[in-house]
Parts: sequence; C-alpha cells; structure tokens
Amino acid sequence: MPRSIVLSVDAMGGDHAPDIIVDGVQALAKTAGDGTLKVLLHGDAALIEPLLARNTEAARLCELRHSDTHVAMTDKPSQAIRKARGSSMWNAVEAVKTGEAHACISAGNTGALMVLSKVLLRMARNAHRPAIAASWPTLKGASVVLDIGANVECTPSQLVEFAIMGEAFYRAIHGAERPTVGLLNIGSEDLKGNDVVRTADALLRNAHLDMAYQGFVEGDDISMGKVDVVVTDGFTGNVALKTAEGTARLATAFLRQSLRESPVSMAGALLCQGAFRRLRARMDPRKFNGGVFLGLGGVVVKSHGGTDGTGFANALNVALDMARSGYARQIAANLEKLAASLDAAGSESLAS
Amino acid sequence: MPRSIVLSVDAMGGDHAPDIIVDGVQALAKTAGDGTLKVLLHGDAALIEPLLARNTEAARLCELRHSDTHVAMTDKPSQAIRKARGSSMWNAVEAVKTGEAHACISAGNTGALMVLSKVLLRMARNAHRPAIAASWPTLKGASVVLDIGANVECTPSQLVEFAIMGEAFYRAIHGAERPTVGLLNIGSEDLKGNDVVRTADALLRNAHLDMAYQGFVEGDDISMGKVDVVVTDGFTGNVALKTAEGTARLATAFLRQSLRESPVSMAGALLCQGAFRRLRARMDPRKFNGGVFLGLGGVVVKSHGGTDGTGFANALNVALDMARSGYARQIAANLEKLAASLDAAGSESLAS
Repeated sequence: MPRSIVLSVDAMGGDHAPDIIVDGVQALAKTAGDGTLKVLLHGDAALIEPLLARNTEAARLCELRHSDTHVAMTDKPSQAIRKARGSSMWNAVEAVKTGEAHACISAGNTGALMVLSKVLLRMARNAHRPAIAASWPTLKGASVVLDIGANVECTPSQLVEFAIMGEAFYRAIHGAERPTVGLLNIGSEDLKGNDVVRTADALLRNAHLDMAYQGFVEGDDISMGKVDVVVTDGFTGNVALKTAEGTARLATAFLRQSLRESPVSMAGALLCQGAFRRLRARMDPRKFNGGVFLGLGGVVVKSHGGTDGTGFANALNVALDMARSGYARQIAANLEKLAASLDAAGSESLAS
Repeated sequence: MPRSIVLSVDAMGGDHAPDIIVDGVQALAKTAGDGTLKVLLHGDAALIEPLLARNTEAARLCELRHSDTHVAMTDKPSQAIRKARGSSMWNAVEAVKTGEAHACISAGNTGALMVLSKVLLRMARNAHRPAIAASWPTLKGASVVLDIGANVECTPSQLVEFAIMGEAFYRAIHGAERPTVGLLNIGSEDLKGNDVVRTADALLRNAHLDMAYQGFVEGDDISMGKVDVVVTDGFTGNVALKTAEGTARLATAFLRQSLRESPVSMAGALLCQGAFRRLRARMDPRKFNGGVFLGLGGVVVKSHGGTDGTGFANALNVALDMARSGYARQIAANLEKLAASLDAAGSESLAS
C-alpha cells in the first residue's frame, strides 16, 4: 500500500468542465484530505485558478499543471489522437506513465481517452485487450459489469482475462475477499449461448485460476446480485447497462404518473417524500460513477461526461481505491495461470 | 379479415397447465365471445373436462381434442421432437399447418415449440430464420423487441428480415399505421458497433423497403419508446429483456425498502395504495405476455410458462390480433424487395 497517493486529473474533460471537476476535488478533499493525497490538475490555468480560489480545500490538494489545449467531446478518436499531445487529457495520462501519479481520471471523450491510454500506457503483462468495468446497483449492494463498451467482439480468452481483471477490481473497490464471478449468457443450462461464451466457460473452469467462478448468469441476475462480477463482451454489456438505465427512468416516470392520478395519493406522496429521497439515493447513478479501463499498464478512470461534482468525487474515490489496492499484483498471478493453461492446451492463440 | 377465427391451444404447456389455460380461455370468452371465435383445446380430456364444466363461457368456445401425451418443460428440444408426435403441442401446431386454425398458442417448452413449429410450418417465403418478438412497456405505450432468443448469432440480412417482420407485427398488435424501426447498437454515431449491425444498417437504408427506418438506437432508447420496433440478435435481445425485468424488480424492491424505513412514509404508503396499484398495472408483465415466432409459415404464440389466466388471455389476444391482421401479406411485399435488392447487389447469400 503506497503511503501517499497522487491522482492525475483531466480538468477539461466532460460537459461541465472545469467547474464540476474542481467541485469533485473539493468534495474529495473534505472526506480524504488526510495529508497523504495529492492531485495534479491538468487544464487551462486561466479558467481553473478562479475556481481553486473559491474552493480552498481543493486548492490545498492540487498542483495546477497548465495545458493550452484539450480534447473535444465530439472529436472522433482518430482525430483526437492526432492533436492530443500536450492536451489536458494527454498530460493527465502521461503522469501515470512516468510514474508521477498512481491513477488518472477524466470525464472527457471516452474513445479518445481509450486510444490515448492504450498508446501511452500499453497493456499490462499477459493482458491483450482493455475492458471498461462499471459498478451497478443490486439487491445485495453492488456488482461489477465488464466490458461495457471497449470491445464490440471478444474471443473466449479475452472474456477470461476480463473475468480476472473484474474480480480483482471488485475486491479493490467493494472490498470482498473472494468475489463471485459469472459469465453473461441467455440460459443457465450448459447448452445455450454461442460458441464464444461456451468456450470461455470451459476455460474458466479448467484454467486453474484462483477465482470463485459460478458459471453462467442471465440478464435478470445482474440487478438481483446473483454474482459480484458479471463478464460479457462490450456490445452486450453496453446494451445491458443502458437498458437498465432506461428501465430505471421508466419506473420512476411511471411512479410519478401513478401518484399524480388521484388527490389521495398526492397527499400520500407528500408523506412519502423522505422515502422517495431514500429511493433516489439508492439508485443514484452518481454513486456508481467511474468506469475503469482495466488491462492497461496503469489505472485510468472514466467519469460520466454529464455528471456533477458529487459524481466526479465518486470517480476520484474509485481511482483512490484502485491506487491503494493490490490490483496489479492480483491480476498478474491469474493472467499468468491463464497463459500457461492456454500454452499447455495449445487450444487458442491469445494474440489479438 | 377472416369472418371467423379459430385458435389452436396447447392446454398442457406451462407450469400451471391445464388450469390457467382454461382460465385464460374463460377470460377471452368474456371479452371476445361474439360467436365468431372458436378454440381447439388440445390435451388430456380427463383433466380438462372438469375445468370446462366449471368455466361455461370457455366451454362454449372450445372444442376439446384429446391427446395422450405432452412435451415436458424440462425436455431438451432434441428429445422433445423425437416423442412429440401426437402430443398436445404437436397437435396444436399441426392444426395451423392443416389450415384448420389461424394461430397456435402454447405456454410450454420454448425450445421444443420452436423446433416443432419449424418442422411443421416451415419458413414463410423469403424468410430464412424465425425470430421471437415481444412487446415491452415504454414511456409512450409499447415497443416490440426482436429477436429475444431464437438466434444467438445473426447475419445482416437476417436482421433486416427481423425488421420487416417486427414492423408488420407491431402494426398487427399495436395498431400504428407506420411503425418506426431502429437497430440496436452501442452508439448513435455511424462509426460505432460491429460489422453485422453496420451492414444491416446500410441494407435497411438501401433496400427500398416500405418502412420508417430511423437508424441506430441504444439500450436506454427502448424503455423511452424512441422507436416502435427495436431490432437485434437473439443474444443481445434476450439479455436486454431480462436485464430490464431484473431492473424493474430491483426498483420495486428499493421502493418497498425505502417506504418501510420510517413510520411517516409507511403512513403515506397507505394513502398511496391506489397509486401503487396503478404502477403495478403499468408494469404488469402479464399485459405484455405472448412472444410471437415470426417468419414461419403460420402464427405461433409462446406464452410465458409461469403466467396465470390473465397473462394467458393476453397471449390469446395477441394470436387473435395476428390472425385478424394483414401480417403475412405485408411481410411478403418487403421480403420480396429485400431479396431483389440482395440479388441485385450480389452482396450476400441469404441461405442460412
């Protein structure tokens, strides 16, 4: 466990930067300002300095690193990468590469951040593709789902790598000693699903990993919290995550409509204000903000672009938990076992 | 529009058959018993006769067709098909094949019903793979999502066929003149997604179909009702549907927990009973029961195996709407255009 943590923050990424970025650091400072934390804040000094002047707790943690440019939310990754050098995002990631910072956080353009992180940080040893992992509210607390969008297609061994990385990520963020892991499929019987998930299932059972693998799970198992870590490809994971967000919004809208349809229930709703506040808190997407790029040679956390200071503070806390954890060491051991198992079986090339 | 409709019902399929099957017919009889509807009820006469004796409205619609055997819920499709001949499910589908009935409804084993329907009814002209379509509650009413589980992998032209079939299905069930259609993807920009959805998107734009195609939609657009028909492969569609079910259950559980945490909100909840009833009704899965196998040479409706009489009645109404619609004629025209367009382009063989 490092005694002092340095976070490297892209202050110009996201829909409401740099304001909510500084708000987020301010919120973090109030809970974690124990003198062992430092934040490198990359961005336009002329915009950021006035914000730090008003947020003194944040200012005490921060070292401002000026950058002239930033990556726009609308840039395509290929455009962004050409002009990224020297931008706030580039500099934020580079501080992790040089070892100056333990983790990087950005609310900016996801595609650009991914490409840039791959270029600067490369992959971790024995990992072949980065995955984006996100936390998800469940009946039992929280699950981690990955990949939620980095890879539209995956090989079986890539899914196994995601399982390894997701399991260590869950331990780092949610503190379970031995997180359970499931593979997302469309039926719990062994015969259903496509070749990729069936082969990945066989690998997970036979590769002698140190992991509590539970087999297949289905879509409704995610919110029920049947397993701690749900593994899938980035196409299915992204659709599942957004479908859940849409369904939660629909349920909220239906509740509001139903309450408005009679004077009695409108009166009841007044008495239920506290309960509705607690309900909103339970489902608050800001509490689950902070998708992590796993599999790289360093920690990169992607905040939702539209979040506020509370949400960004959560992304900062995810980065902090990752930086303090034994994540890199844990995945190294299991990725080694997977590589050995694939070599022995000669069953599949891991080269992507 | 046929003057008299005949529905062919597997009375032995599902977790609570034949009781809830007869309950469903009884409920249908009360709303649709105008003398132009007839139900062929296939199953064990010794079990069904006492139920019909108690449900006289159902009895008036029904013609009981005894069968000695039925397909078990736990049979694998390959096992089921070997012993299916003469079973209640087989006989129910066969009545559609012979032209005696306009549509078949079963709450039995999904895999067995699919295999058996393909064997008996074959594919519709120019259709190459059956898809399962389901209705889904949205902010604007209902959407149709397909495929929700028949095909774990799809080619681009199969997705276009699903779009054609789903669009006509939506018109038959939900009555819109010109339903809008979207292709499920992980980003609304043209560049995201995998090759299959990108090629399907190009086909949908260029095949001169008579269809209000709107391009890509994302997971959260489904519940928001952005389009009427959401097209995807059976793996993604199944995960999306079950994820939404799980999220709805989670939201309900969170609401209940939040209300119980203070005496004031418990009192408020008493006043909100009517609103909570209306909320349950809005999200009632029974209202959306009845997945339809599209693309076959006849109409087959699959009810959820665990539903009750109200849910089964909804599946019967879906079959009734399909039987009364111009579905077969409508898909024939668009499938013809797709086939012509693919022939002209020589771009891809439709053979599965």
